[in-house]
Amino acid sequence: MNSSLNDKASRQVPGVRLGTARAGIKRADRDDLLVIEATEGSACAAVFTRNAFCAAPVIVAREHLLALSQGLGPAGFAERSDVASGEPETARPRWLLVNSGNANAGTGSRGLEDARFTCRTLAEQVGGHPEQVLPFSTGIIGEYLPVNKIAAALPDALEALDEEGWEKAACAIMTTDTRPKLATRTLEIGGQRITLIGIAKGSGMIHPDMATMLAFIATDARIEPASLQDCLADAVDRTFNCITVDGDTSTNDACVLIASGVSKAPELKRDSADFPVFAEALREVCGALAEAIVRDGEGATKLIRIVVEEARDPAEARAVAKTIAHSPLVKTAFFASDPNWGRILAAVGRAGCAGLAIDRVSIWLGEVLIVEHGGRAAGYTEAQGTEVMARDDILVRVALGRGTAVQTVLTCDLSYDYVRINAEYRT
Amino acid sequence: MNSSLNDKASRQVPGVRLGTARAGIKRADRDDLLVIEATEGSACAAVFTRNAFCAAPVIVAREHLLALSQGLGPAGFAERSDVASGEPETARPRWLLVNSGNANAGTGSRGLEDARFTCRTLAEQVGGHPEQVLPFSTGIIGEYLPVNKIAAALPDALEALDEEGWEKAACAIMTTDTRPKLATRTLEIGGQRITLIGIAKGSGMIHPDMATMLAFIATDARIEPASLQDCLADAVDRTFNCITVDGDTSTNDACVLIASGVSKAPELKRDSADFPVFAEALREVCGALAEAIVRDGEGATKLIRIVVEEARDPAEARAVAKTIAHSPLVKTAFFASDPNWGRILAAVGRAGCAGLAIDRVSIWLGEVLIVEHGGRAAGYTEAQGTEVMARDDILVRVALGRGTAVQTVLTCDLSYDYVRINAEYRT
Repeated sequence: MNSSLNDKASRQVPGVRLGTARAGIKRADRDDLLVIEATEGSACAAVFTRNAFCAAPVIVAREHLLALSQGLGPAGFAERSDVASGEPETARPRWLLVNSGNANAGTGSRGLEDARFTCRTLAEQVGGHPEQVLPFSTGIIGEYLPVNKIAAALPDALEALDEEGWEKAACAIMTTDTRPKLATRTLEIGGQRITLIGIAKGSGMIHPDMATMLAFIATDARIEPASLQDCLADAVDRTFNCITVDGDTSTNDACVLIASGVSKAPELKRDSADFPVFAEALREVCGALAEAIVRDGEGATKLIRIVVEEARDPAEARAVAKTIAHSPLVKTAFFASDPNWGRILAAVGRAGCAGLAIDRVSIWLGEVLIVEHGGRAAGYTEAQGTEVMARDDILVRVALGRGTAVQTVLTCDLSYDYVRINAEYRT
Repeated sequence: MNSSLNDKASRQVPGVRLGTARAGIKRADRDDLLVIEATEGSACAAVFTRNAFCAAPVIVAREHLLALSQGLGPAGFAERSDVASGEPETARPRWLLVNSGNANAGTGSRGLEDARFTCRTLAEQVGGHPEQVLPFSTGIIGEYLPVNKIAAALPDALEALDEEGWEKAACAIMTTDTRPKLATRTLEIGGQRITLIGIAKGSGMIHPDMATMLAFIATDARIEPASLQDCLADAVDRTFNCITVDGDTSTNDACVLIASGVSKAPELKRDSADFPVFAEALREVCGALAEAIVRDGEGATKLIRIVVEEARDPAEARAVAKTIAHSPLVKTAFFASDPNWGRILAAVGRAGCAGLAIDRVSIWLGEVLIVEHGGRAAGYTEAQGTEVMARDDILVRVALGRGTAVQTVLTCDLSYDYVRINAEYRT
């Protein structure tokens, strides 16, 4: 198990190649186009935003996955005439086409046409079917996608395809991110080494609901597709869905997991003895990427880990943790390194716990008990709180005294730079 | 109908006197203590925060109202031995004791004792019963109330009691407010002139739930108490409960309405012909105070009026309006005068409207149609949006295309100063 890219074996996922290029969508001086290619026969799982205004690429990606799952019909790959007999060949997604700088959201029917056009263009160049291409976009909402720039840069991205392209890929998908986000894990299954690598982007409009901003993860494990989808949905719910920067759920959230199956390890299914080992490694990769997104939250100077314990049920624990995490008063206090526990208390109080008994609530800042019985803890001194608040990573632990459910949510502070970044975003 | 204090008749509510003093709770250079005295027989209605961690004064005020409604018992005023016979005299609240600079919240059992102590102290000096005093506090959470300072300043406040004390009172209850908030209306009932005056404070931790930060309203109308309470609850729900600065519901919210009954106008009850006229005037006073709170929101540079129309039901309209109003991305765009309608669209999309059809949604900025059919409106130009965004008062109108319900919510933008004010609050 490791998280660096120092040895070659964990710098690549056999069967998965990545290529980037400069399309000049928003800025001319950086790569903003990414193609991820999975070898034939790879399995692919994906989850998308629940925002009702999901972006054109999200709609088109879902359409393509649906079409592939149903077989492509007369014109499609799955039933093409050169497949002799027996089981029809199942066409699977093989290319992810990603751009930063423009979200292709709020672009109406033209946005859908644009997303389909880019998929068709890529499919023609690689000899695949358009439905095998899943489009992803991130950046400004409400402007049309510059499809000609993308089409012009596509040959360069395909030319660059390389199993070692992960770091360049992580950079190409950045928008307001200040650093690339990459996580890797290796594990052994059936005596074979398996690698998992994931990249993500996200810094603002971060409050994922069923998926994060954009995350792409790949493994060379061979995994039965339905099990792969379950495993991804579970990992995302426990990681990306438990972070928030600003409470704004993006229109473009998507998380994709490719399993190339190139490894010689035995195929994994839901009931395989080794499945939990893979699932745990996937959760670790997702967790590392989710934490990296919060650490790089717009204007963030601190990571705040909010743990709510002793809740009646998981939903209550999550509601309380998110109410604290979304409070601008709590977030500005953290920015100021001010142990203003009254604001945390007020957030707990408005989180909607019916019949909450104040005098059973305790709050810790780091290891310091600051609130008990609804007020300042006996023996707590401001100096203790100030010491904890000066850290870059701060743990807030809230015990509700009502049950046994626990939930952790990660967030960041609210700084001048958050306002600056979002006030200047389009200028 | 007017809203100035220019003529003497609308500068005072007969039967209600106000007195302020310097207790030096947080700063030595300003009045921070307020006593409001209602003449004997006045009716009083009140609504309080729904935050589970309500502050000690809120708990004590509720206790006192309950005790008065049940008769005060052996030691109490209502059944004292000098009341001869017949209907027991109903003791009513007659004094509001208000301090700024300290919220007496998160102060546990000592906070309750402190609030009761200040009520007892006032009662002794005015010859009333402690239950007739309702306490209110606003300011920092989690520090004990300096009760000796308050007790020491009380005689000055009582000495200062004056029917023309409204403007000084509005100043004495300010915390991070930059200006006092006062609204007045006059009306005629049964040929008699009736006056309504209200004051409010509030700038941060503003997302009232059943009441606002602190608002005190008085009238010389004679109104049956149960009808007065209904009337206040309705007005608050339509005004204070429809504003938000930062989404944080205070622990100390309270709104009180006193009807001195000194006017010669006939008593009003729920079914009086003139009751709607009074109710409308009360809504106007509450609405004016609520708007003043948002205009003075911490760091606010703009007032944003969000109108959601064509919703399935009022709850849906309110949910969508509040989701837009709470979005830090929307709020920073307004601060930057950036017509970034994509952020509004994304907020609508995550507001939880089941089955929302994107292509039926329209959005106007001021009078300019900016979004239709899920994308940029035909003919909309950035210059039109920029012109509207440069205004101090901005109307955002969203039509969901699902029904007929409408809701308006007021909010303000999110600026550097919001961060500064809340990062520096305790330093």
